[in-house]
Amino acid sequence: MSPFCRKVRLSLAEKRIECELVEVRYWERDPDFLRRNPAGKVPVLKMDGKLMAESSAICEWIEETCPEPALMPATPDARVEVRRLVQWFDDKFHSEVTSNLLYERVNKKLMKSGYPESRNIKAGAQKIKFHLDYMSWLLDHRRWLAGNTMTLADFAAAAHLSALDYISDVDWNRSENVRDWYAKIKSRPAFRSILADVVPGFPPPAHYADLDF
Amino acid sequence: MSPFCRKVRLSLAEKRIECELVEVRYWERDPDFLRRNPAGKVPVLKMDGKLMAESSAICEWIEETCPEPALMPATPDARVEVRRLVQWFDDKFHSEVTSNLLYERVNKKLMKSGYPESRNIKAGAQKIKFHLDYMSWLLDHRRWLAGNTMTLADFAAAAHLSALDYISDVDWNRSENVRDWYAKIKSRPAFRSILADVVPGFPPPAHYADLDF
Repeated sequence: MSPFCRKVRLSLAEKRIECELVEVRYWERDPDFLRRNPAGKVPVLKMDGKLMAESSAICEWIEETCPEPALMPATPDARVEVRRLVQWFDDKFHSEVTSNLLYERVNKKLMKSGYPESRNIKAGAQKIKFHLDYMSWLLDHRRWLAGNTMTLADFAAAAHLSALDYISDVDWNRSENVRDWYAKIKSRPAFRSILADVVPGFPPPAHYADLDF
Repeated sequence: MSPFCRKVRLSLAEKRIECELVEVRYWERDPDFLRRNPAGKVPVLKMDGKLMAESSAICEWIEETCPEPALMPATPDARVEVRRLVQWFDDKFHSEVTSNLLYERVNKKLMKSGYPESRNIKAGAQKIKFHLDYMSWLLDHRRWLAGNTMTLADFAAAAHLSALDYISDVDWNRSENVRDWYAKIKSRPAFRSILADVVPGFPPPAHYADLDF
C-alpha cells in the first residue's frame, strides 16, 4: 500500500515495463534489505542488476531510460511544476494526510506498533479536504494536475489517493473535477495492478476497484 | 538558515547566477507569501518573472536552463544516485538531524514557538553520528558523495551541515574524509555568501567561516 511504491509501479506500467513485486517487511530492518537501501524504505527497484532507491529518483531514471510514453513535459518551465507537485504530494500531502490516515489505520496494525491515535485521524480527515480543494482549484485551470498532459504529478497524487481510497478515506463527492480526474486515471491499464491489491486483514470496499465509483 | 534555501543558493552561485535574497517569515503564513507558494515554505525563486517552489524542483530547473558548470552527471545511472542522496539529506537527514537540532535550538526561538526539547536534541546529536559515518563510508569509495564529480548531492549535504555547523553541532573530528570533503566544498566561491550569513541573536562561532577549521 505504500504510495511511493504505487507511484513507481504506475510509471513502470504506463511504459509497459513488467515488474515482479516482492513484499518487504521493511520496518523489521532486515540487514539484507538495509544493504539494498540503507534508508530502510520502500520502494527499491532492481533492473538490469542495478539497485535503485527513493521513488522520485527512480521515476526520473525510468523517464530518462524509457522516455515513451512521456510522463514529463518537454520544457523546463513545465517540468518544474511537475516536480513541485510530486514533492507536494510526497511531502506535504504525505505528512498531513497519508501519515495521519493510512499509517494510523493500516501500517500501525501491520507493524504491530500500537493503536490508531484518533487525534491524528481527525487531523488527517480535516487536512484531506484542503488538499482535495487545492486539486480542484488546479483542475479548474488545467486538464491534468500539472498542465494539459498527464504527468508524474498525477501519478504521485493518484498513488496517495488510491491508497486512502482503499480504506474509504476519500470523499469523492467533494468536488466533481477531482472525481472526474480520478475516474480518468483509474481507468488506465497502468492502474489495473493497483486495483487488484489486497492487504490481508483489510478487505477493500466495493467501490475501490470499481471504475464507475 | 534554511538548508533548502542554502542548497538553491549554492546551485545558483556555482553557476554564477546572482540573486537577491529576500527574508521571509514564512511561519507567519502571510497571504502574499502563500500566493507565491501555497505550501508555505521557503525557498521560492523568482526568475524572469516566473515563481518556482520546492528546492529540488528548482535545482533541476537551474540545471536544465543553465547546465554549466554541471551539478548533475551525464548518465541516468549516475543521476539516480545523485537524486537518491539529495533525497537522503532532504528527507532522512532533515527529519532525524536538522529538525532535532537546528529547529529545536534556532527556529523555535525565531518563531516564538516554544522551548527546545532536550529529548529531541539528544536524538539529533545521536543520529548525526550515523549520518557522518555513512558519509565517511561513501567518501571511502568516492571523491565526492555521489561519485567522482561534485554534484547536487554534495550541495544538499553541505546545506544541512553548514547550518548545523553554525550552531556548532557538527563534530568534524569524527572522520577525516568528511572533514576534508567539507573543507573542499567550503573553500568554493559559491560558499562565500553562506559563510557570511548571520542570524540575529545567534552569533556564529569563530570556526564557522574559517576555511582552516
